[in-house]
Amino acid sequence: MSPRALAIDVFGTVVDWRGSIIKEGKRLKRSVDWPKFADGWLTGYRSRVEKVRTGQRPWANLDVLLSEAFGDLVIAFSLADVSKEKLDHFSQVWHRLQPWPDCVAGLKRLRKRFALATLSNGNMILLTDMAKHGRLPWDCILSAELVKRYKPAAEPYLLAVESLGPEAEQVMYVAAHKWDLSAGAATARLRTAFMPRPQEMPGQDPSDLKPDPSYDINARDFEDLADQLGA
Amino acid sequence: MSPRALAIDVFGTVVDWRGSIIKEGKRLKRSVDWPKFADGWLTGYRSRVEKVRTGQRPWANLDVLLSEAFGDLVIAFSLADVSKEKLDHFSQVWHRLQPWPDCVAGLKRLRKRFALATLSNGNMILLTDMAKHGRLPWDCILSAELVKRYKPAAEPYLLAVESLGPEAEQVMYVAAHKWDLSAGAATARLRTAFMPRPQEMPGQDPSDLKPDPSYDINARDFEDLADQLGA
Repeated sequence: MSPRALAIDVFGTVVDWRGSIIKEGKRLKRSVDWPKFADGWLTGYRSRVEKVRTGQRPWANLDVLLSEAFGDLVIAFSLADVSKEKLDHFSQVWHRLQPWPDCVAGLKRLRKRFALATLSNGNMILLTDMAKHGRLPWDCILSAELVKRYKPAAEPYLLAVESLGPEAEQVMYVAAHKWDLSAGAATARLRTAFMPRPQEMPGQDPSDLKPDPSYDINARDFEDLADQLGA
Repeated sequence: MSPRALAIDVFGTVVDWRGSIIKEGKRLKRSVDWPKFADGWLTGYRSRVEKVRTGQRPWANLDVLLSEAFGDLVIAFSLADVSKEKLDHFSQVWHRLQPWPDCVAGLKRLRKRFALATLSNGNMILLTDMAKHGRLPWDCILSAELVKRYKPAAEPYLLAVESLGPEAEQVMYVAAHKWDLSAGAATARLRTAFMPRPQEMPGQDPSDLKPDPSYDINARDFEDLADQLGA
Protein backbone atom coordinates (compact mmCIF):
# COMPACT_ATOMS: atom_id res chain seq x y z
CA MET A 1 0.00 0.00 0.00
CA SER A 2 1.36 3.40 -1.00
CA PRO A 3 1.12 6.24 1.55
CA ARG A 4 -1.61 8.78 0.78
CA ALA A 5 -0.07 11.54 2.85
CA LEU A 6 3.29 12.87 3.98
CA ALA A 7 3.58 14.49 7.41
CA ILE A 8 6.70 16.62 7.47
CA ASP A 9 8.82 18.10 10.23
CA VAL A 10 9.57 21.78 9.64
CA PHE A 11 12.44 23.29 11.69
CA GLY A 12 15.65 22.03 10.12
CA THR A 13 13.90 19.66 7.72
CA VAL A 14 12.14 22.32 5.61
CA VAL A 15 13.43 25.65 6.86
CA ASP A 16 16.91 26.91 7.69
CA TRP A 17 16.01 28.41 11.07
CA ARG A 18 19.62 29.14 12.02
CA GLY A 19 20.65 30.76 8.74
CA SER A 20 17.43 32.81 8.66
CA ILE A 21 18.00 34.19 12.17
CA ILE A 22 21.64 35.01 11.40
CA LYS A 23 20.70 36.78 8.15
CA GLU A 24 17.95 38.92 9.70
CA GLY A 25 20.08 39.55 12.78
CA LYS A 26 22.95 40.98 10.76
CA ARG A 27 20.58 43.53 9.26
CA LEU A 28 19.40 44.50 12.76
CA LYS A 29 22.82 45.14 14.32
CA ARG A 30 26.33 44.32 13.13
CA SER A 31 28.33 43.83 16.31
CA VAL A 32 26.60 40.70 17.57
CA ASP A 33 27.67 37.06 17.37
CA TRP A 34 24.50 35.99 15.53
CA PRO A 35 25.37 32.29 15.18
CA LYS A 36 25.74 32.21 18.97
CA PHE A 37 22.49 34.16 19.33
CA ALA A 38 20.66 31.64 17.12
CA ASP A 39 22.06 28.72 19.07
CA GLY A 40 21.04 30.42 22.33
CA TRP A 41 17.50 30.86 21.03
CA LEU A 42 17.33 27.15 20.21
CA THR A 43 18.62 26.20 23.64
CA GLY A 44 16.27 28.67 25.34
CA TYR A 45 13.11 27.43 23.68
CA ARG A 46 14.10 23.74 23.85
CA SER A 47 14.65 23.88 27.61
CA ARG A 48 11.18 25.42 27.95
CA VAL A 49 9.65 22.77 25.68
CA GLU A 50 11.22 20.15 27.95
CA LYS A 51 9.56 21.73 31.00
CA VAL A 52 6.19 21.51 29.27
CA ARG A 53 6.90 17.98 28.08
CA THR A 54 7.80 16.77 31.57
CA GLY A 55 4.86 18.50 33.24
CA GLN A 56 6.97 21.08 35.10
CA ARG A 57 4.83 23.83 33.54
CA PRO A 58 1.43 23.85 31.86
CA TRP A 59 0.95 23.94 28.11
CA ALA A 60 2.28 27.04 26.34
CA ASN A 61 2.62 27.30 22.58
CA LEU A 62 5.89 27.87 20.78
CA ASP A 63 5.29 31.59 20.19
CA VAL A 64 5.13 32.01 23.96
CA LEU A 65 8.26 29.92 24.60
CA LEU A 66 10.22 31.61 21.78
CA SER A 67 9.24 35.02 23.13
CA GLU A 68 10.41 34.17 26.66
CA ALA A 69 13.73 32.85 25.35
CA PHE A 70 14.11 35.98 23.18
CA GLY A 71 13.65 38.20 26.24
CA ASP A 72 16.64 36.53 27.91
CA LEU A 73 18.78 37.00 24.78
CA VAL A 74 17.95 40.69 24.40
CA ILE A 75 19.63 41.21 27.76
CA ALA A 76 22.49 38.73 27.26
CA PHE A 77 23.41 40.17 23.83
CA SER A 78 22.90 43.84 24.78
CA LEU A 79 20.19 44.59 22.23
CA ALA A 80 18.43 47.17 24.41
CA ASP A 81 19.77 49.96 22.15
CA VAL A 82 17.74 48.63 19.18
CA SER A 83 14.29 50.26 18.83
CA LYS A 84 11.34 48.40 20.34
CA GLU A 85 9.63 48.31 16.95
CA LYS A 86 12.62 46.64 15.28
CA LEU A 87 13.08 44.18 18.16
CA ASP A 88 9.38 43.25 18.06
CA HIS A 89 9.64 42.59 14.35
CA PHE A 90 12.83 40.54 14.74
CA SER A 91 11.31 38.53 17.59
CA GLN A 92 8.84 37.17 15.01
CA VAL A 93 11.58 35.90 12.64
CA TRP A 94 10.42 32.31 13.27
CA HIS A 95 7.27 33.21 11.30
CA ARG A 96 9.53 34.11 8.34
CA LEU A 97 12.11 31.30 8.25
CA GLN A 98 13.49 30.55 4.78
CA PRO A 99 13.13 27.08 3.21
CA TRP A 100 16.15 25.13 1.97
CA PRO A 101 16.65 25.55 -1.81
CA ASP A 102 15.15 22.14 -2.74
CA CYS A 103 11.95 22.49 -0.70
CA VAL A 104 9.46 24.47 -2.76
CA ALA A 105 10.20 22.63 -6.01
CA GLY A 106 10.37 19.20 -4.33
CA LEU A 107 7.22 19.74 -2.28
CA LYS A 108 5.30 20.90 -5.36
CA ARG A 109 6.17 17.63 -7.09
CA LEU A 110 5.18 15.59 -4.04
CA ARG A 111 1.91 17.51 -3.63
CA LYS A 112 0.64 16.26 -6.98
CA ARG A 113 0.65 12.72 -5.63
CA PHE A 114 0.30 13.02 -1.82
CA ALA A 115 -1.50 15.15 0.73
CA LEU A 116 1.25 17.24 2.33
CA ALA A 117 1.01 18.27 5.98
CA THR A 118 3.38 19.89 8.42
CA LEU A 119 3.88 18.09 11.71
CA SER A 120 5.79 20.52 13.85
CA ASN A 121 6.19 21.73 17.40
CA GLY A 122 5.60 25.21 15.95
CA ASN A 123 2.16 26.64 16.64
CA MET A 124 -0.55 27.04 14.02
CA ILE A 125 -0.22 30.73 13.18
CA LEU A 126 3.58 30.51 13.15
CA LEU A 127 3.44 27.66 10.61
CA THR A 128 0.71 29.40 8.62
CA ASP A 129 2.65 32.67 8.41
CA MET A 130 5.84 30.81 7.49
CA ALA A 131 4.09 28.96 4.66
CA LYS A 132 2.73 32.22 3.24
CA HIS A 133 6.13 33.87 3.53
CA GLY A 134 8.14 31.00 2.01
CA ARG A 135 5.41 29.90 -0.46
CA LEU A 136 5.41 26.41 1.01
CA PRO A 137 2.69 24.39 -0.72
CA TRP A 138 1.13 22.60 2.27
CA ASP A 139 -2.27 20.98 1.95
CA CYS A 140 -2.79 21.30 5.68
CA ILE A 141 -1.04 22.45 8.82
CA LEU A 142 -0.73 20.01 11.70
CA SER A 143 0.91 21.16 14.91
CA ALA A 144 1.68 19.93 18.38
CA GLU A 145 -0.49 22.86 19.45
CA LEU A 146 -3.59 20.98 18.28
CA VAL A 147 -3.02 18.22 20.84
CA LYS A 148 -1.14 20.36 23.39
CA ARG A 149 1.73 17.84 23.55
CA TYR A 150 5.17 18.41 22.08
CA LYS A 151 6.96 15.84 19.92
CA PRO A 152 8.30 13.25 20.47
CA ALA A 153 5.22 12.44 22.61
CA ALA A 154 3.00 10.07 20.63
CA GLU A 155 -0.01 12.40 20.36
CA PRO A 156 1.18 14.63 17.50
CA TYR A 157 2.11 11.62 15.34
CA LEU A 158 -1.20 9.95 16.15
CA LEU A 159 -2.98 13.17 15.17
CA ALA A 160 -1.36 12.85 11.73
CA VAL A 161 -2.62 9.28 11.42
CA GLU A 162 -6.14 10.16 12.56
CA SER A 163 -6.34 13.21 10.27
CA LEU A 164 -4.66 11.82 7.16
CA GLY A 165 -4.93 8.03 7.42
CA PRO A 166 -6.84 6.62 9.17
CA GLU A 167 -4.35 3.73 8.91
CA ALA A 168 -0.80 4.40 10.19
CA GLU A 169 0.80 2.91 7.06
CA GLN A 170 -1.03 5.48 4.92
CA VAL A 171 1.12 8.25 6.42
CA MET A 172 4.85 8.72 5.94
CA TYR A 173 6.72 10.98 8.35
CA VAL A 174 9.66 12.95 6.95
CA ALA A 175 12.28 14.46 9.24
CA ALA A 176 15.92 15.47 9.49
CA HIS A 177 16.35 14.24 13.06
CA LYS A 178 16.61 10.65 14.20
CA TRP A 179 15.04 11.31 17.64
CA ASP A 180 11.95 12.57 15.85
CA LEU A 181 11.72 9.51 13.60
CA SER A 182 12.73 6.81 16.07
CA ALA A 183 11.26 8.04 19.36
CA GLY A 184 8.16 9.51 17.69
CA ALA A 185 7.02 8.40 14.27
CA ALA A 186 8.28 4.81 14.45
CA THR A 187 6.66 4.30 17.85
CA ALA A 188 3.34 5.49 16.41
CA ARG A 189 3.94 3.07 13.49
CA LEU A 190 4.06 5.68 10.73
CA ARG A 191 6.30 5.04 7.76
CA THR A 192 9.52 6.98 8.00
CA ALA A 193 11.72 9.00 5.65
CA PHE A 194 15.04 10.34 6.94
CA MET A 195 16.35 13.49 5.28
CA PRO A 196 19.56 14.63 7.00
CA ARG A 197 20.39 18.32 6.71
CA PRO A 198 24.14 18.67 7.31
CA GLN A 199 23.87 22.44 6.72
CA GLU A 200 21.47 22.91 9.65
CA MET A 201 24.14 23.33 12.33
CA PRO A 202 27.92 23.10 12.39
CA GLY A 203 29.40 20.33 14.48
CA GLN A 204 26.58 17.82 14.13
CA ASP A 205 27.60 14.30 15.10
CA PRO A 206 28.25 12.43 11.80
CA SER A 207 26.28 9.46 13.15
CA ASP A 208 23.20 11.73 13.34
CA LEU A 209 23.49 12.39 9.60
CA LYS A 210 24.21 8.86 8.43
CA PRO A 211 21.51 7.01 6.44
CA ASP A 212 19.95 4.15 8.37
CA PRO A 213 18.22 1.19 6.67
CA SER A 214 15.74 0.91 9.54
CA TYR A 215 13.87 3.87 7.97
CA ASP A 216 11.65 3.13 4.97
CA ILE A 217 13.45 5.80 2.94
CA ASN A 218 16.70 7.73 3.25
CA ALA A 219 16.57 10.85 1.08
CA ARG A 220 19.07 13.63 0.38
CA ASP A 221 16.40 16.33 -0.06
CA PHE A 222 12.80 16.78 -1.26
CA GLU A 223 13.72 16.40 -4.93
CA ASP A 224 15.35 13.07 -4.12
CA LEU A 225 12.34 12.03 -2.01
CA ALA A 226 10.03 12.86 -4.95
CA ASP A 227 12.25 10.71 -7.21
CA GLN A 228 12.19 7.80 -4.78
CA LEU A 229 8.40 8.01 -4.30
CA GLY A 230 7.77 8.29 -8.04
CA ALA A 231 6.18 11.76 -7.78
CA MET B 1 -8.21 46.27 15.14
CA SER B 2 -8.42 44.49 11.79
CA PRO B 3 -8.86 40.70 11.79
CA ARG B 4 -5.69 38.77 10.91
CA ALA B 5 -7.51 35.63 9.86
CA LEU B 6 -10.76 34.45 8.33
CA ALA B 7 -12.25 31.13 9.44
CA ILE B 8 -14.68 29.97 6.81
CA ASP B 9 -17.53 27.47 6.76
CA VAL B 10 -17.32 25.12 3.77
CA PHE B 11 -20.52 23.16 2.94
CA GLY B 12 -22.88 25.63 1.28
CA THR B 13 -20.67 28.66 1.93
CA VAL B 14 -17.75 27.62 -0.31
CA VAL B 15 -18.89 24.50 -2.12
CA ASP B 16 -22.13 23.56 -3.88
CA TRP B 17 -22.56 20.18 -2.20
CA ARG B 18 -26.06 19.63 -3.61
CA GLY B 19 -25.25 20.58 -7.21
CA SER B 20 -22.04 18.52 -7.13
CA ILE B 21 -23.86 15.39 -5.93
CA ILE B 22 -26.60 15.82 -8.53
CA LYS B 23 -24.07 16.32 -11.34
CA GLU B 24 -21.95 13.26 -10.45
CA GLY B 25 -25.08 11.23 -9.76
CA LYS B 26 -26.50 11.84 -13.22
CA ARG B 27 -23.31 10.43 -14.73
CA LEU B 28 -23.66 7.33 -12.53
CA LYS B 29 -27.27 6.44 -13.40
CA ARG B 30 -29.97 8.39 -15.21
CA SER B 31 -33.22 7.11 -13.72
CA VAL B 32 -32.76 8.44 -10.19
CA ASP B 33 -34.22 11.54 -8.53
CA TRP B 34 -30.79 12.99 -7.70
CA PRO B 35 -32.01 16.18 -6.02
CA LYS B 36 -34.01 13.97 -3.66
CA PHE B 37 -30.97 11.72 -3.19
CA ALA B 38 -28.79 14.73 -2.29
CA ASP B 39 -31.37 15.99 0.19
CA GLY B 40 -31.61 12.51 1.70
CA TRP B 41 -27.85 12.39 2.14
CA LEU B 42 -27.94 15.73 3.97
CA THR B 43 -30.75 14.54 6.23
CA GLY B 44 -29.02 11.22 6.84
CA TYR B 45 -25.70 12.69 7.91
CA ARG B 46 -27.24 15.58 9.86
CA SER B 47 -29.34 13.25 11.99
CA ARG B 48 -26.19 11.29 12.79
CA VAL B 49 -24.27 14.47 13.61
CA GLU B 50 -27.08 15.34 16.03
CA LYS B 51 -26.69 11.97 17.77
CA VAL B 52 -22.99 12.65 18.24
CA ARG B 53 -23.67 16.22 19.34
CA THR B 54 -26.19 15.15 21.96
CA GLY B 55 -24.04 12.30 23.27
CA GLN B 56 -26.30 9.50 21.98
CA ARG B 57 -23.29 8.03 20.20
CA PRO B 58 -19.52 8.47 20.57
CA TRP B 59 -17.45 10.64 18.27
CA ALA B 60 -17.34 9.57 14.63
CA ASN B 61 -15.95 11.75 11.86
CA LEU B 62 -17.96 12.97 8.90
CA ASP B 63 -16.57 10.37 6.48
CA VAL B 64 -18.01 7.68 8.75
CA LEU B 65 -21.39 9.41 9.09
CA LEU B 66 -21.61 10.15 5.35
CA SER B 67 -20.78 6.55 4.56
CA GLU B 68 -23.49 5.22 6.87
CA ALA B 69 -26.07 7.58 5.36
CA PHE B 70 -24.94 6.58 1.87
CA GLY B 71 -25.51 2.91 2.70
CA ASP B 72 -29.16 3.63 3.50
CA LEU B 73 -29.61 5.56 0.23
CA VAL B 74 -28.10 2.82 -1.95
CA ILE B 75 -30.97 0.62 -0.80
CA ALA B 76 -33.69 3.30 -0.85
CA PHE B 77 -32.78 4.47 -4.38
CA SER B 78 -32.13 0.97 -5.80
CA LEU B 79 -28.50 1.52 -6.75
CA ALA B 80 -27.46 -2.08 -6.15
CA ASP B 81 -27.18 -2.63 -9.94
CA VAL B 82 -24.32 -0.11 -10.16
CA SER B 83 -20.86 -1.69 -9.87
CA LYS B 84 -19.22 -1.67 -6.45
CA GLU B 85 -16.23 0.21 -7.86
CA LYS B 86 -18.42 3.01 -9.22
CA LEU B 87 -20.48 3.19 -6.03
CA ASP B 88 -17.34 3.37 -3.89
CA HIS B 89 -16.04 6.22 -6.02
CA PHE B 90 -19.36 8.07 -5.90
CA SER B 91 -19.61 7.61 -2.13
CA GLN B 92 -16.50 9.86 -1.90
CA VAL B 93 -18.10 12.73 -3.86
CA TRP B 94 -17.95 14.92 -0.73
CA HIS B 95 -14.15 14.93 -1.19
CA ARG B 96 -14.70 16.43 -4.66
CA LEU B 97 -17.41 19.07 -4.12
CA GLN B 98 -17.23 22.02 -6.53
CA PRO B 99 -16.80 25.59 -5.26
CA TRP B 100 -19.23 28.36 -6.17
CA PRO B 101 -17.96 30.45 -9.13
CA ASP B 102 -16.77 33.40 -6.98
CA CYS B 103 -14.79 31.35 -4.46
CA VAL B 104 -11.36 30.69 -5.94
CA ALA B 105 -10.88 34.25 -7.25
CA GLY B 106 -12.33 35.87 -4.11
CA LEU B 107 -10.36 33.68 -1.71
CA LYS B 108 -7.11 34.37 -3.62
CA ARG B 109 -7.67 38.10 -3.10
CA LEU B 110 -8.46 37.63 0.59
CA ARG B 111 -5.45 35.35 1.09
CA LYS B 112 -3.06 38.19 0.24
CA ARG B 113 -4.24 40.06 3.32
CA PHE B 114 -5.54 37.44 5.76
CA ALA B 115 -4.72 33.92 6.90
CA LEU B 116 -7.52 31.77 5.45
CA ALA B 117 -8.74 28.69 7.29
CA THR B 118 -11.62 26.34 6.85
CA LEU B 119 -13.81 25.76 9.89
CA SER B 120 -16.03 22.88 8.96
CA ASN B 121 -17.74 19.83 10.35
CA GLY B 122 -16.04 17.94 7.51
CA ASN B 123 -13.05 15.85 8.58
CA MET B 124 -9.44 16.73 7.82
CA ILE B 125 -8.75 14.45 4.84
CA LEU B 126 -12.14 15.26 3.30
CA LEU B 127 -11.38 19.00 3.46
CA THR B 128 -7.80 18.45 2.28
CA ASP B 129 -8.88 16.37 -0.72
CA MET B 130 -11.61 18.91 -1.56
CA ALA B 131 -9.12 21.78 -1.52
CA LYS B 132 -6.77 19.93 -3.87
CA HIS B 133 -9.63 19.04 -6.18
CA GLY B 134 -11.21 22.50 -6.27
CA ARG B 135 -7.90 24.43 -6.02
CA LEU B 136 -9.12 26.22 -2.89
CA PRO B 137 -6.27 28.39 -1.59
CA TRP B 138 -6.49 27.67 2.14
CA ASP B 139 -3.62 28.55 4.43
CA CYS B 140 -4.75 25.93 6.89
CA ILE B 141 -7.47 23.39 7.48
CA LEU B 142 -9.41 23.53 10.73
CA SER B 143 -12.07 20.94 11.38
CA ALA B 144 -14.49 19.88 14.08
CA GLU B 145 -12.55 16.60 13.92
CA LEU B 146 -9.60 18.26 15.67
CA VAL B 147 -11.70 18.89 18.79
CA LYS B 148 -14.12 15.99 18.32
CA ARG B 149 -17.12 18.28 18.72
CA TYR B 150 -19.45 19.32 15.91
CA LYS B 151 -20.50 22.92 15.29
CA PRO B 152 -22.35 24.80 16.68
CA ALA B 153 -20.70 23.59 19.93
CA ALA B 154 -18.25 26.27 21.06
CA GLU B 155 -15.08 24.17 20.78
CA PRO B 156 -14.52 24.40 17.00
CA TYR B 157 -14.89 28.21 17.04
CA LEU B 158 -12.58 28.46 20.06
CA LEU B 159 -10.06 26.28 18.19
CA ALA B 160 -10.03 28.92 15.44
CA VAL B 161 -9.37 31.66 18.00
CA GLU B 162 -6.62 29.69 19.73
CA SER B 163 -4.95 28.73 16.45
CA LEU B 164 -5.30 31.99 14.54
CA GLY B 165 -5.78 34.72 17.16
CA PRO B 166 -5.11 34.40 20.02
CA GLU B 167 -7.67 37.20 20.54
CA ALA B 168 -11.24 36.47 19.41
CA GLU B 169 -11.54 39.80 17.57
CA GLN B 170 -8.54 38.84 15.39
CA VAL B 171 -10.66 36.14 13.73
CA MET B 172 -13.67 36.69 11.49
CA TYR B 173 -16.00 33.76 10.85
CA VAL B 174 -17.67 33.59 7.43
CA ALA B 175 -20.75 31.44 6.86
CA ALA B 176 -23.91 31.12 4.80
CA HIS B 177 -26.03 29.93 7.70
CA LYS B 178 -27.37 32.02 10.54
CA TRP B 179 -27.37 29.14 13.07
CA ASP B 180 -23.65 28.76 12.48
CA LEU B 181 -22.97 32.47 13.01
CA SER B 182 -25.38 33.18 15.84
CA ALA B 183 -25.31 29.96 17.88
CA GLY B 184 -21.62 29.38 17.25
CA ALA B 185 -19.29 32.15 16.18
CA ALA B 186 -21.06 35.01 17.96
CA THR B 187 -21.21 33.02 21.21
CA ALA B 188 -17.45 32.46 20.98
CA ARG B 189 -17.10 36.25 20.30
CA LEU B 190 -15.57 35.92 16.84
CA ARG B 191 -16.34 38.63 14.32
CA THR B 192 -18.99 37.52 11.86
CA ALA B 193 -19.59 37.78 8.13
CA PHE B 194 -22.85 36.48 6.69
CA MET B 195 -22.77 35.30 3.07
CA PRO B 196 -26.18 33.89 2.09
CA ARG B 197 -26.17 31.36 -0.74
CA PRO B 198 -29.70 31.34 -2.20
CA GLN B 199 -28.58 28.75 -4.81
CA GLU B 200 -27.66 26.20 -2.13
CA MET B 201 -31.13 24.66 -1.80
CA PRO B 202 -34.54 25.41 -3.28
CA GLY B 203 -37.21 26.49 -0.86
CA GLN B 204 -34.97 28.18 1.71
CA ASP B 205 -36.89 30.46 4.08
CA PRO B 206 -36.31 34.04 2.78
CA SER B 207 -35.66 35.17 6.36
CA ASP B 208 -32.65 32.80 6.44
CA LEU B 209 -31.15 34.65 3.47
CA LYS B 210 -31.85 38.22 4.58
CA PRO B 211 -28.89 40.42 5.59
CA ASP B 212 -28.84 41.18 9.29
CA PRO B 213 -27.05 44.22 10.76
CA SER B 214 -26.15 42.25 13.90
CA TYR B 215 -23.32 40.65 11.87
CA ASP B 216 -20.18 42.70 11.32
CA ILE B 217 -20.43 42.20 7.57
CA ASN B 218 -23.12 41.04 5.17
CA ALA B 219 -21.55 39.96 1.86
CA ARG B 220 -22.99 38.66 -1.41
CA ASP B 221 -20.01 36.43 -2.18
CA PHE B 222 -16.22 36.21 -1.67
CA GLU B 223 -15.47 38.95 -4.23
CA ASP B 224 -17.84 41.27 -2.37
CA LEU B 225 -16.25 40.28 0.97
CA ALA B 226 -12.81 41.08 -0.45
CA ASP B 227 -14.13 44.49 -1.58
CA GLN B 228 -15.62 45.21 1.85
CA LEU B 229 -12.43 44.14 3.68
CA GLY B 230 -10.19 46.14 1.34
CA ALA B 231 -8.35 43.05 0.08
